[in-house]
Amino acid sequence: MNKYHEVANKINSYIQEKNLARGHKLPTLTELESTYNVGKNTIIKALEVLETNGMIYQVRGSGTYVRGRHRKGFVNLTDVQGFQSIFREFNLSSEVIELKEIQAPSNVAEILELTDQETLYYIKRVRYIESRPFCVEESYYLKTVVPYLNKEIASQSIFNYLTNDLKINIHFSDLFMRIGKLNQEEAVYLQLETHDPSLIIESIYYLSNGRPFNYSNIKYHHEEAQFFVQGNNF
Amino acid sequence: MNKYHEVANKINSYIQEKNLARGHKLPTLTELESTYNVGKNTIIKALEVLETNGMIYQVRGSGTYVRGRHRKGFVNLTDVQGFQSIFREFNLSSEVIELKEIQAPSNVAEILELTDQETLYYIKRVRYIESRPFCVEESYYLKTVVPYLNKEIASQSIFNYLTNDLKINIHFSDLFMRIGKLNQEEAVYLQLETHDPSLIIESIYYLSNGRPFNYSNIKYHHEEAQFFVQGNNF
Repeated sequence: MNKYHEVANKINSYIQEKNLARGHKLPTLTELESTYNVGKNTIIKALEVLETNGMIYQVRGSGTYVRGRHRKGFVNLTDVQGFQSIFREFNLSSEVIELKEIQAPSNVAEILELTDQETLYYIKRVRYIESRPFCVEESYYLKTVVPYLNKEIASQSIFNYLTNDLKINIHFSDLFMRIGKLNQEEAVYLQLETHDPSLIIESIYYLSNGRPFNYSNIKYHHEEAQFFVQGNNF
Repeated sequence: MNKYHEVANKINSYIQEKNLARGHKLPTLTELESTYNVGKNTIIKALEVLETNGMIYQVRGSGTYVRGRHRKGFVNLTDVQGFQSIFREFNLSSEVIELKEIQAPSNVAEILELTDQETLYYIKRVRYIESRPFCVEESYYLKTVVPYLNKEIASQSIFNYLTNDLKINIHFSDLFMRIGKLNQEEAVYLQLETHDPSLIIESIYYLSNGRPFNYSNIKYHHEEAQFFVQGNNF
């Protein structure tokens, strides 16, 4: 991790721990330099990272302020770590319906930009939030990137496994959202009626070399789907 | 506009005009320096802006690549200019149902962080995309920030009016999404049935000094609501 990412994480932890409100003014550059014992450029870069990630905003000639404006129960979609942030706030669990190795279906091969026949892990899970069914997820992972997966891992946080155990660096993601209807099987899993509305999110996750390695199609329970997006115009 | 923002815009235009595909490699730093006749630091900062905005990604030791991955008809929510980007792609129009000056209702006063009684413009519009009803929007603007609005302006792009005519610099936004149901009036406007599902987006827009000045509650036609979010982990 770069020095300025380290400092950005420390400032972020400080904001979280002190539970600082939106609009709270942070210490000056000089004060931050001495608190974290680093040079001015490191502080400037750390603040840029925090601004890009929606944690703070900088007002020219005035200072740096806490941006955080969240609603309880709304999950941040802008952050690649969105799924992990669910885990921090709530008691999540997963039931693995199916886990198998497959050859890429043609639509998934296209999305993951596969040129050869490649083997994928296919996982179907129902995820629960505080024991309430939250979503039905179908997810595909390139086996060349994720060489091993089992039901035990998939019943917990696959993303923690990817980042902490496999040391995979997820660089960015694309999410596509629309409203659709549940089929009969999905409705049973979510304890709803067939044809009930659902928020559908298709997501593609990319490695740091720009290669897409994971595609998911997630259907959310319409009462549990609450998402938060931060827009920037810096 | 900063020099590096100018260069970022030029590189972005180049990508759009050439219709460069995802994964297309951009020229090297040295080549970009000579093309745009600026120094290395300006190019580095321009590329950072483009990376933050999801236009490109940089691979250490390899180069800079076009990130763009869009689906026709999906609107980018990450970009503050999301609404304008709809205007670029589609033929949008608006029917103004109501436009009046009001005292802030208590829920809106809280969201816009008002300490005194302040006058707001309240606007209710139905928006059409290629003549199909797309959403019903209720929007509140601080009159101290937006001193004048009329039905003619509101029947076109309010955002173009704010940025081009009033020179308002929109710095960032927060969007909250969930699924809800249409009431009878909304269903009539959207040519749907009462209680049909709707994607509801509440949005708050902020000035460059961090002050929230606009709050909107938008209910989308469930077949027209298609959104795109880019996540970053830089």
